[in-house]
Amino acid sequence: MISASRLQERIETLGKIGQTPDGGVTRVALSKEDQEAQALVSVWMEQAGMRVYVDPAGNLIGRIDGKSKTAEPVVIGSHIDSVINGGKFDGTIGVIGGIEVVQHLKEEAVEPLRPIEVVAFCEEEGSRFQSGLFGSRAMIGTFSEQDLLIKDKQGITRREALIRFGLDPDKIKEEVTRSKGDLAAYLEMHIEQGPILEKMGAPVGIVTGIAGPSWMEIVVEGKAGHAGTLPMGLRKDALLGAGEIILSVEEICLSHKDTPIVGTVGHVEVLPGGSNIVPGRVAFSVDIRDIDVSRRNDVIDQVKTRAREICEKRGLRVSFNERIRINPVQCSPSIVDVMRAQSREMNLGCPELVSGAGHDAQLIAALTDMGMIFVRCKDGVSHNPEEFAEAVDIALGTELLSRVVLHYAMQ
Amino acid sequence: MISASRLQERIETLGKIGQTPDGGVTRVALSKEDQEAQALVSVWMEQAGMRVYVDPAGNLIGRIDGKSKTAEPVVIGSHIDSVINGGKFDGTIGVIGGIEVVQHLKEEAVEPLRPIEVVAFCEEEGSRFQSGLFGSRAMIGTFSEQDLLIKDKQGITRREALIRFGLDPDKIKEEVTRSKGDLAAYLEMHIEQGPILEKMGAPVGIVTGIAGPSWMEIVVEGKAGHAGTLPMGLRKDALLGAGEIILSVEEICLSHKDTPIVGTVGHVEVLPGGSNIVPGRVAFSVDIRDIDVSRRNDVIDQVKTRAREICEKRGLRVSFNERIRINPVQCSPSIVDVMRAQSREMNLGCPELVSGAGHDAQLIAALTDMGMIFVRCKDGVSHNPEEFAEAVDIALGTELLSRVVLHYAMQ
Repeated sequence: MISASRLQERIETLGKIGQTPDGGVTRVALSKEDQEAQALVSVWMEQAGMRVYVDPAGNLIGRIDGKSKTAEPVVIGSHIDSVINGGKFDGTIGVIGGIEVVQHLKEEAVEPLRPIEVVAFCEEEGSRFQSGLFGSRAMIGTFSEQDLLIKDKQGITRREALIRFGLDPDKIKEEVTRSKGDLAAYLEMHIEQGPILEKMGAPVGIVTGIAGPSWMEIVVEGKAGHAGTLPMGLRKDALLGAGEIILSVEEICLSHKDTPIVGTVGHVEVLPGGSNIVPGRVAFSVDIRDIDVSRRNDVIDQVKTRAREICEKRGLRVSFNERIRINPVQCSPSIVDVMRAQSREMNLGCPELVSGAGHDAQLIAALTDMGMIFVRCKDGVSHNPEEFAEAVDIALGTELLSRVVLHYAMQ
Repeated sequence: MISASRLQERIETLGKIGQTPDGGVTRVALSKEDQEAQALVSVWMEQAGMRVYVDPAGNLIGRIDGKSKTAEPVVIGSHIDSVINGGKFDGTIGVIGGIEVVQHLKEEAVEPLRPIEVVAFCEEEGSRFQSGLFGSRAMIGTFSEQDLLIKDKQGITRREALIRFGLDPDKIKEEVTRSKGDLAAYLEMHIEQGPILEKMGAPVGIVTGIAGPSWMEIVVEGKAGHAGTLPMGLRKDALLGAGEIILSVEEICLSHKDTPIVGTVGHVEVLPGGSNIVPGRVAFSVDIRDIDVSRRNDVIDQVKTRAREICEKRGLRVSFNERIRINPVQCSPSIVDVMRAQSREMNLGCPELVSGAGHDAQLIAALTDMGMIFVRCKDGVSHNPEEFAEAVDIALGTELLSRVVLHYAMQ
């Protein structure tokens, strides 16, 4: 039996490591807290019958053999590092749920054909070295020496942090990187981090794809001036142009009804910034995400066109610095089919939705078929001490995960 | 003769004190540079025949007697302190122009009926103790002990700075404060700090009043969320509400055509401020100025009403923190009449305009009839090393000042 109470108890216990005064969790990668957390999770993995090791990239891996000695493993992954003062569910429910799946098989005395691995990837969040998905990048072979030279706030490089963690970063290429075909399937369970399942009254959702984020900075330049002496008609106020552009991002996204496209301006810098000075320069971020890459790129183009029109009308200059355009990733249609079938057998109405946030799954998809399960969370809140998911919902997600793992591990 | 070359030479010489690498001026109140500048200006005052003293509030005052021993003086005022890396014209042309007026009388051997004083007020800009118009506040008696306790960035109080300057701040009330009726008239000449005279091709303008600034902070609160996982339709994005309000400030001001009302949002803070986080809170400044106090207050009310409507529509909370509402001050209609007549005699077409910026004149107006003359400046730029006014324009302004001073000093 998948045990809701065991899941809950383990989530609570793991949440004590790195606990913050207001009930959140700060457990950044390769820290003392991370080492303590890996030690605890290793014990649970061993209790579930797994052999446990930490690879040279800091990924904690538990493995049970299958009947076939040569078959590729089914891999369940997630992470146990957190953002600064984050919550205790993000990432951890995927690792603890994965262990529960294996423990369940052991308790039911089911021996799979294929090996099963549970992976807690190193630094998914990027909250220590400001560059996340490190362990999964190492696994797919796209990390570089540059990633090892990044320093944390104390000036410690990632290379040094790996060494202090007892690892040999020079062995990453050789021992961590896997090739296409080395995995039979990859599955990840995560809290939704959004409000859709809660709004629909569904405990569990099937993820159909991971939206590709695009980040650009828009800079609007006009002319600063005195708030008292410059008449309205003679102004080149950069903030008014920026304001119109910011509203146009919303308008353009809303015009694509019934699609999951989202556009966000989250960072704004107004210069010179004095309350009695007409703004001469405004720089702001624009984050646009969609599962459909051509629609996303169309929306980026629409925003740029509107920005140029607005600035031309107002006599302002505008420029665009594109920072990132990551392609969206589709979940494996066959895994989605299996999830649909299994959820029907469970009499669980599982909405299908897109992940707006990034996950290790989007990278591991380069190696094998990938599927993700979302668990309802309260008010859509995550990366916050208030983050919460019900144990029964996590147990239902784990049950679905278990069925899908078994499906692939038995063939 | 009013001498354009002497005016120019003195402006250049004074501009060397506190000169910055890019040709600007940093000369904050009660500093070493201020002391040096006062010493230089004192020499010019003495050359013009004035007795010179520094009052306990740090105001530098030069005075010539009139024929009448009991008549109230005509006072010409401005300041020689600057903002950080400001220009060499702001304030100084009013003091140097005032000295030129007195020197001109001496050279023409004209003895006025009334005494004439030229005052360089202490800390008009507020760039050291962040609270300007200090000397004029002391003169009208509205400064308080609290003003002496304010500290500069080095932790030195204004009281301590006055003492180090060789002054006795305990004598301010007794020796600096004047009463209504103690002055026959007050006149101030200043660069426009705006682009209106330049646009109209006029070297000199007659000021009809000083707009009263109002400053408030508007705080819009929604709910922060993940830029990827929160669908557009479920957001409470504080920045979108703020953007609409910021645009409404412009729209409302522009709807009052043919009035000098101006509204500015110059400072904006977006929180949490991450480029991948939907903004949960935005605080921004709103500066609204007009010469007509009821119209200004109406506009403030309109902005607040629109802000409430916008936030109600978007499900956001809004609050208003009113920081300042200074009443506009009208220049004396009789002084404006004299200026008009004198400028006609000079064949000088002087547009009449409102000062959007604050000046010592707006306070001294509490004691006597007040008038101001504006001199055209380049591109409307001030508080900047690029600040510039032509010597011939300053000379024309000084000629007009001289005629108005003589008008009042002779009756």
